[in-house]
Amino acid sequence: MSGGSGMRIVVIGASAAGLKAAARARRLLPQADIVVFDAREFISYGACGLPFYLSGDLDNLDRLRETQWQAIRDAEFFARVKGLDVRCGRRATALDLATRTVTVESVDAGAAESVGYDRLVIATGAAPRLLGGITLGDAVTCFHVPEESQPLRRGLETGQIGSAVVIGGGFVGVEVAVALADMWGCAVTLLEAEDRLLPHLLDADMSRLVAAELARHDVVVKTGVPVAAAHTVGEGAEVTAGGETFAADRAVVALGVVPQIGFAAAAGLVLGASGALAVDEQLRTSDHAVFAAGDCVEVVHRLTRQPCYVPLGSLANRQGRVVGDNLAADAADAEAAQDRPADADPYSSFGAVVGSSCLKVFDLNVAATGLSETAAAHVGLSADAVWGTFHDVAHYYPEPGALYLKVVYERGSGRLLGLQAVGPGEAVKRVDVFASLLQRDGKLRDLLDLEFCYAPPYNAALDPLHGLGCAALNREEAGVIGVGPFVAADGRAVIDVRSADEAAARPWGSPEALHIPSEQLRARLSEIPTDRPLLIVCEKGPRSAELARWLLAQERRDVVYLAGGMALRSQAGSG
Amino acid sequence: MSGGSGMRIVVIGASAAGLKAAARARRLLPQADIVVFDAREFISYGACGLPFYLSGDLDNLDRLRETQWQAIRDAEFFARVKGLDVRCGRRATALDLATRTVTVESVDAGAAESVGYDRLVIATGAAPRLLGGITLGDAVTCFHVPEESQPLRRGLETGQIGSAVVIGGGFVGVEVAVALADMWGCAVTLLEAEDRLLPHLLDADMSRLVAAELARHDVVVKTGVPVAAAHTVGEGAEVTAGGETFAADRAVVALGVVPQIGFAAAAGLVLGASGALAVDEQLRTSDHAVFAAGDCVEVVHRLTRQPCYVPLGSLANRQGRVVGDNLAADAADAEAAQDRPADADPYSSFGAVVGSSCLKVFDLNVAATGLSETAAAHVGLSADAVWGTFHDVAHYYPEPGALYLKVVYERGSGRLLGLQAVGPGEAVKRVDVFASLLQRDGKLRDLLDLEFCYAPPYNAALDPLHGLGCAALNREEAGVIGVGPFVAADGRAVIDVRSADEAAARPWGSPEALHIPSEQLRARLSEIPTDRPLLIVCEKGPRSAELARWLLAQERRDVVYLAGGMALRSQAGSG
Repeated sequence: MSGGSGMRIVVIGASAAGLKAAARARRLLPQADIVVFDAREFISYGACGLPFYLSGDLDNLDRLRETQWQAIRDAEFFARVKGLDVRCGRRATALDLATRTVTVESVDAGAAESVGYDRLVIATGAAPRLLGGITLGDAVTCFHVPEESQPLRRGLETGQIGSAVVIGGGFVGVEVAVALADMWGCAVTLLEAEDRLLPHLLDADMSRLVAAELARHDVVVKTGVPVAAAHTVGEGAEVTAGGETFAADRAVVALGVVPQIGFAAAAGLVLGASGALAVDEQLRTSDHAVFAAGDCVEVVHRLTRQPCYVPLGSLANRQGRVVGDNLAADAADAEAAQDRPADADPYSSFGAVVGSSCLKVFDLNVAATGLSETAAAHVGLSADAVWGTFHDVAHYYPEPGALYLKVVYERGSGRLLGLQAVGPGEAVKRVDVFASLLQRDGKLRDLLDLEFCYAPPYNAALDPLHGLGCAALNREEAGVIGVGPFVAADGRAVIDVRSADEAAARPWGSPEALHIPSEQLRARLSEIPTDRPLLIVCEKGPRSAELARWLLAQERRDVVYLAGGMALRSQAGSG
Repeated sequence: MSGGSGMRIVVIGASAAGLKAAARARRLLPQADIVVFDAREFISYGACGLPFYLSGDLDNLDRLRETQWQAIRDAEFFARVKGLDVRCGRRATALDLATRTVTVESVDAGAAESVGYDRLVIATGAAPRLLGGITLGDAVTCFHVPEESQPLRRGLETGQIGSAVVIGGGFVGVEVAVALADMWGCAVTLLEAEDRLLPHLLDADMSRLVAAELARHDVVVKTGVPVAAAHTVGEGAEVTAGGETFAADRAVVALGVVPQIGFAAAAGLVLGASGALAVDEQLRTSDHAVFAAGDCVEVVHRLTRQPCYVPLGSLANRQGRVVGDNLAADAADAEAAQDRPADADPYSSFGAVVGSSCLKVFDLNVAATGLSETAAAHVGLSADAVWGTFHDVAHYYPEPGALYLKVVYERGSGRLLGLQAVGPGEAVKRVDVFASLLQRDGKLRDLLDLEFCYAPPYNAALDPLHGLGCAALNREEAGVIGVGPFVAADGRAVIDVRSADEAAARPWGSPEALHIPSEQLRARLSEIPTDRPLLIVCEKGPRSAELARWLLAQERRDVVYLAGGMALRSQAGSG
């Protein structure tokens, strides 16, 4: 490699993607001229940690920009430790692709300078999404940058904030609601326009578990209520939604984010359908000399093969490295290329994503990857689903954690589409493993072939994903159909095959179920109604699934079982 | 499907593999005649849970054979709930492949009967491995069946057992040592013939972490000491090993297991090199009418493509289902086959394994998959390794757990070979994800493309596996070499680039390191010795790796860094 001598690299944005690209380029191109601009002084911080500053888990904001050896990652740090020239308080305002110059303005003084580049990296991230009726002000704020979280934290600490309305039940909205309620006991109302919380992660059924957990911790959840207006009124906030008015000490707007690419769009760089910058696999924009990465670009979804907007810190970090590699590859001269193995492509690529994400909701771990049933239907995929209730460790091991899972797959082909995992148990592990199957176009049978570590403190001999794979194959191959956990009896005779104790602890409810314990059912076949379809019900699913199959073999038609059992059904409470 | 009418299936062994096969066959073949024999009355129990009965985590042995709804899985249970005829106290003693009959003897009465079969399933499991000098007796026992663990537990509860020698530092030996010492405060000496504990899981370096954890909990660990003799002497046990004699209240033999296949081998079924039954992908033995599964068969290793013996409960359960499927496929007549989709193969297969396993060693989670460096060398693979020290969650999140990892990969090709993970942090998740890459012949670059859920309570934005992938690629592509955590300075100048506080807390030791904090090193290049190779040292690895790369770019040769840093090195204590 040439060392990059004579190459000028300009990076706009000193957060995950931009700094990772710059640092990687610096390592690969010790001689290159690299400069990073950012509008803000507080750079290189873990934005995903802001809810944990709000919650009190972190004592101050600097924790979010400290290295593991307690150095503060400011401009001076990057100069001394990373050999990077980072200039804070400078905002990019214009871009001329023809002359390869970017205009950078001082935030304070307003003075502008023209900066030439050989390669430009746009890593400007995202800005909060707003709605027409929302007026930001003293009591109505977003939750996107430290300056917005600091006054909230102070108000909580001093007791000035005792109530809040959170506008938006997505990822950040739920995290903020938890942070406000958990440590500070703030009275929180959470408003979501769609019919459920976390609509981008979860189907309505799994989302009920999250709503129930919030309700158990006294968070008032209202779904299906689009916010019409929000204002500061006196010392507090007033929010109008679904015809109701909610008054609280503060309103926090968490409606998701939009890519922040004004100057780049104005320069004529091509945008994708999502409104974010379109990039190729090398993360190059429509202009060969301009890369982009992080929350300002769109990516390709592995399952739909369509572009999509997935603003996640985990992707931004990985993209930064890819851009750094490709800056170096651009700089490499022919002489250097000869040093590489003949078959090595000097360029790195950023592949399609499956969109894994997770969050903690009080005592629940919530994680999902791929497509929900809703999302699959939205893109025209014909999907089926299976649900299951499991322990995350051997069921006899002390204190097993419950885990409620839903696998979505393509009908017919058995191609895996997505996993939703919710529960006090180890949800994230299963999603991470499942995601790795999605990345290789895995099918239902691949679930059965997964090899998990097994010891009683960590798992059962068969993992929940094995169980769900079997349930789905039993459905596809043998017509043993598990219906979703919140189904109504709907004219079916309900046969509860649990023990008397189990049935008493969590009764099916109305209309009443016929109770025949699983070990008696084979002998009491004659008692089972023949005039109606059957719904077999047990505690977690396996007993009812096995007996549903047996009944099908006895020439009964129209037999289904309650997937995930009464355990999953009752977990959603009245939520 | 024919329902299996007229087909007689005989299963020998009522543990995981045998019962799973029988239950699956019953579901698929409601009309088949299925009978299961087992020598013991106590069947279908989670044998992997015995150490947790010993430890006191479980209050009684029945917990290991209870369903999740508190039903005891005995012969009556299988008859009523699973529709299976399970006959206990009957041992298979002979097999005639030509006439398809197996001789079954009553354990008590000795009366023998000949049982004809259309299909036989051998699932007889394994027996403890013993050595010539070991005499089992009152005070010298194995730890393989409930009858052996019960008196141990009683002796601990009553205070009769205050000291023990555990013979064998493999999986079960370490679990037993922990169980004895943790709750009961038993004085434990753990003897292992090889140079390290857990030799089948871990290389010597990672194994030191386990030895140190045991030492911290007052378990005396002796490695490299083959046991010459063990006897009951009076009320206690005497063990001779490595020229020393160890006296204790009990000696527990945990030297691993051997397949238990006497009658099957005598009948002429083909054995593999490991001494276990050879089976094909359908789990069929050399006789078409005989299947085998569980701890009595050998499997193919995914990485070596060679047969190997991997007796794990997780595999036995999955194999049972495959056998059940294939029993049904054998039974299916032509008519039934027409009901299947045209492209469906009615047979299931059990693929190659990677051998994931895990155990809990006091506060350490220990997990591994694939090949260690030692195992790779043993099969002639040219392997390199990278080590890393990480937090299992965002480093600023409260109470992050440390995680020490080692990735082994094939030099040149970058093919992934194995992962070893040890630490209080979430080790198992990383191993489970890594195993899924091994199952598809993953390479180093695939580590970088892994998509993990990210939120601060669950991970850093980049997972440890991303970090290790980068470290390995930096080694392969740029010659940035991290040396193993327990390397000696060996003539190199040691440059410690940590802060003064860090260096004071865990000093390099002798010969003394030159201390230049990372942020000063670029400016103080002239102070670095030019007459010797360099070893750059930091707390966890990233700083020293980055500066090693920078020094290489300054035309320094012979620069390496300490992989995993002083954190990993010090974690092994003086162990």
